[in-house]
Amino acid sequence: MELSARNQLPASVKDVRMGEVMAQVVLELAGGGELVAAITRDSAERLGLQPGKRVLAVVKATEVMVALP
Amino acid sequence: MELSARNQLPASVKDVRMGEVMAQVVLELAGGGELVAAITRDSAERLGLQPGKRVLAVVKATEVMVALP
Amino acid sequence: MELSARNQLPASVKDVRMGEVMAQVVLELAGGGELVAAITRDSAERLGLQPGKRVLAVVKATEVMVALP
Amino acid sequence: MELSARNQLPASVKDVRMGEVMAQVVLELAGGGELVAAITRDSAERLGLQPGKRVLAVVKATEVMVALP
Amino acid sequence: MELSARNQLPASVKDVRMGEVMAQVVLELAGGGELVAAITRDSAERLGLQPGKRVLAVVKATEVMVALP
Amino acid sequence: MELSARNQLPASVKDVRMGEVMAQVVLELAGGGELVAAITRDSAERLGLQPGKRVLAVVKATEVMVALP
Repeated sequence: MELSARNQLPASVKDVRMGEVMAQVVLELAGGGELVAAITRDSAERLGLQPGKRVLAVVKATEVMVALP
Repeated sequence: MELSARNQLPASVKDVRMGEVMAQVVLELAGGGELVAAITRDSAERLGLQPGKRVLAVVKATEVMVALP
Repeated sequence: MELSARNQLPASVKDVRMGEVMAQVVLELAGGGELVAAITRDSAERLGLQPGKRVLAVVKATEVMVALP
Repeated sequence: MELSARNQLPASVKDVRMGEVMAQVVLELAGGGELVAAITRDSAERLGLQPGKRVLAVVKATEVMVALP
Repeated sequence: MELSARNQLPASVKDVRMGEVMAQVVLELAGGGELVAAITRDSAERLGLQPGKRVLAVVKATEVMVALP
Repeated sequence: MELSARNQLPASVKDVRMGEVMAQVVLELAGGGELVAAITRDSAERLGLQPGKRVLAVVKATEVMVALP
């Protein structure tokens, strides 16, 4: 599958916390730094996410904000 | 300002393309890799975004997806 | 690529309108009905979107609202 | 109420799972196929969502991605 | 139509700027303050948005961030 | 930090409900009216959100919809 969302950053799963409906997935970016994803628990289970697993963090361009430090 | 969105990645502006309403900002992440942001043209102008400027890429956790490569 | 966003609806491109930064893509769902996507022009070009092309409409679960008619 | 979000697909509720804060609502589209929505539990309760209920799935155009299969 | 998005703030249109694909709509909240919406140009035209028109600003709860000033 | 998201409304926290992964934060806008935010529980804890706390509600322009009442 080739996706319109161009923002695809290589990462590995650092931590997964499961709620009843949502799951919080902490990702360690290959380039350094962390990214937190809140996805449905069903999706986290279907993808078999667990610490160490290599994944991509995907973000639609319209969801990225820019800030001055 | 301290923001609930924890995802804040250091980056520098690589390219800005202005449309009538929206602007596309290509960011070069400090850790490597690119991220594209689609924000309003007004915001891009207000922040004075131009190539080389150091910024943060900010993303709300609920907007991050995870994919298996 | 296997994506956490489970919402993937088969569709065909009905119309593409290019702006300077964004593109509007009208999709005809295989099951009937239309869906409009606003993606970056760069993504629309990279995917080679044009009328008749078979695609998937992809939506993250946290972006879907529910309404009573 | 007439909404700027043009993407409104007729559906019926197939399943609702309640968490403490969020609810996962599985929708069966009238045209075929499923769509999963993650909305607040409060909203799911306020709308009285339960299996069989006829609803609309609503998505803002900027939230729809396009993928090549 | 009753919508799962509970966030519906009374406002009036202050300004509309049309691009090829997107429109920027500046809203003046009844309670004071401004809110900027980026919606498709088609939606802005279909709703007949123009200065002075009374509308609702609608936001899904998962899209609202919180910041400390 | 100066953010591209121009939509920043002064508010005070009215209620916080914690789930395992997500938190629902009810905000009372300074100008009147309520806004509900669904953010990660981690962010709600990190910001020390509790009733009475003065905050900003922040929303990206691409996430704001417009409706006719």
